[in-house]
Amino acid sequence: MGSSGAVPAYGRYPSAQLVCIQNEYMLVDCGEGAQIQLFRYGCPVQRINHIFISHLHGDHYLGLMGLLFTLHLNHRTNDLHLYSHRGLQDIIITQLKYSSSALRFRLIFHELTPGKAETILDSKHFTVSTIPLKHKLNCSGFLFREKSKPRRIDKTVLPSGLSIRELNALKAGDDIRHEDGTVRFTNASLTLKPRKSRSYAYCSDTAYDERLVNIIREVDVLYHETTFMEADRDKAEETLHSTAAQAAHIARLANCERLLIGHFSARYIEMEPLLAEAQAVFINTELALEGKTFTLAE
Amino acid sequence: MGSSGAVPAYGRYPSAQLVCIQNEYMLVDCGEGAQIQLFRYGCPVQRINHIFISHLHGDHYLGLMGLLFTLHLNHRTNDLHLYSHRGLQDIIITQLKYSSSALRFRLIFHELTPGKAETILDSKHFTVSTIPLKHKLNCSGFLFREKSKPRRIDKTVLPSGLSIRELNALKAGDDIRHEDGTVRFTNASLTLKPRKSRSYAYCSDTAYDERLVNIIREVDVLYHETTFMEADRDKAEETLHSTAAQAAHIARLANCERLLIGHFSARYIEMEPLLAEAQAVFINTELALEGKTFTLAE
Repeated sequence: MGSSGAVPAYGRYPSAQLVCIQNEYMLVDCGEGAQIQLFRYGCPVQRINHIFISHLHGDHYLGLMGLLFTLHLNHRTNDLHLYSHRGLQDIIITQLKYSSSALRFRLIFHELTPGKAETILDSKHFTVSTIPLKHKLNCSGFLFREKSKPRRIDKTVLPSGLSIRELNALKAGDDIRHEDGTVRFTNASLTLKPRKSRSYAYCSDTAYDERLVNIIREVDVLYHETTFMEADRDKAEETLHSTAAQAAHIARLANCERLLIGHFSARYIEMEPLLAEAQAVFINTELALEGKTFTLAE
Repeated sequence: MGSSGAVPAYGRYPSAQLVCIQNEYMLVDCGEGAQIQLFRYGCPVQRINHIFISHLHGDHYLGLMGLLFTLHLNHRTNDLHLYSHRGLQDIIITQLKYSSSALRFRLIFHELTPGKAETILDSKHFTVSTIPLKHKLNCSGFLFREKSKPRRIDKTVLPSGLSIRELNALKAGDDIRHEDGTVRFTNASLTLKPRKSRSYAYCSDTAYDERLVNIIREVDVLYHETTFMEADRDKAEETLHSTAAQAAHIARLANCERLLIGHFSARYIEMEPLLAEAQAVFINTELALEGKTFTLAE
């Protein structure tokens, strides 16, 4: 929804991403105007049940209050889970108080632990855990990992007449046996290997920090902020942000499949130079621009 | 900057207007995305020294925090005056605390008195006073009035050789006299009447309320919210908003020159029907749409 750094510029909005895993929609950061962007791109906002805020700099959360009011006005009643470092609850409660508003739905606040990689959501099909980032405020990235998937029955070789119990045994990886316990069909003969469990790591905002590498190793897609280019590296170091080349180094060291870059400084009008700088280090890099969808193959 | 009601929709942003009087720039309400809009339309944001917030519903102030951060990041140092009902200071201080930010410039908070029409800014060329509005929260509109302007010297008839003291006497409305006190030139013979003192009234959000009429009588331009159309009048009454026809009635009763309408509900895709409904009552009505500039002749 937004590729901009701290100051929105040239039509770029502050940080916000919609992540969908197996029909579960989640929002990652929620910068100012996120609801406008979600509306623009036809996203199913009422299906968002989890919102993850990396840190409490304005460009990562200022769109949240407006989104909450809009969900309320559009008659949401489902619980909404908010994950953030300490302070978000105070910020939201303060604003609800002065607007004399009681939301129609429940907010469930989950406070992140500074400096610690921890699992914060363990759902049926995936987990979300935090990635400690090196920034001026307590700041965490988020790592989305699908759980192992069942083996898939190979319908082209499946004999007829198997019971549901037997089919479930196949999916669980077991052989099918005769009543005397001897193997009737080996699992491998009737199933295909599971679909791949995909993973996505969101890292914004952060200075160059190789401690990331172990946490995000071999993720399918890494989003890593690239506020600056190497020519402005002093600025990156001063503000605890990263350059495009640095993000690409992290992706290469961690052996990621793809790298998405964003959180671009307002000093850059065109993004192609940042892309080129990253691709010189890690070829499989893309710009995480407004309105773009990235689909991960299974 | 924004013509939308509570929920932004169809590219319409929440309430925000930039008012310029004799080179003084002021912001009236500051809904989410106001800074994005100000940037889009090339407005001189650093020249804004006064921000007036009508009330603390999110669609009227949620863009303020992001704007403050952007002014800070762009090295503003001038004082910024904020006018609002009680709560804005708490909301801003709470958010500054959790972002560990100290702004480079001073915020000066001015708390509005609920239910009272009072002058809140008295500057060299104009005043700003409040307009009590009938809404669910404490809510005030704002009335901008230029002060009386000096008579203008008529250069086509001005004799040469007058002193600066004599020219100032003319501007002040005095005659020019001989040393013995007798009139040398009458003021009327050398001057033209002053340029018109213009006025603008901003009224959002409010139910239909004829008590407005006395306060805004004969303003040059009235902005009056029109969240709904007459077909949804029950909804307007329930939410303490106005219909397009009601806004036009107020403009007619107050004998205003022009009416601007905005704060459109997300239920309306096209605005022309609202315009037609208002124009049926008050012909000189215009839509206060994003990016439009309204210039008041002197």
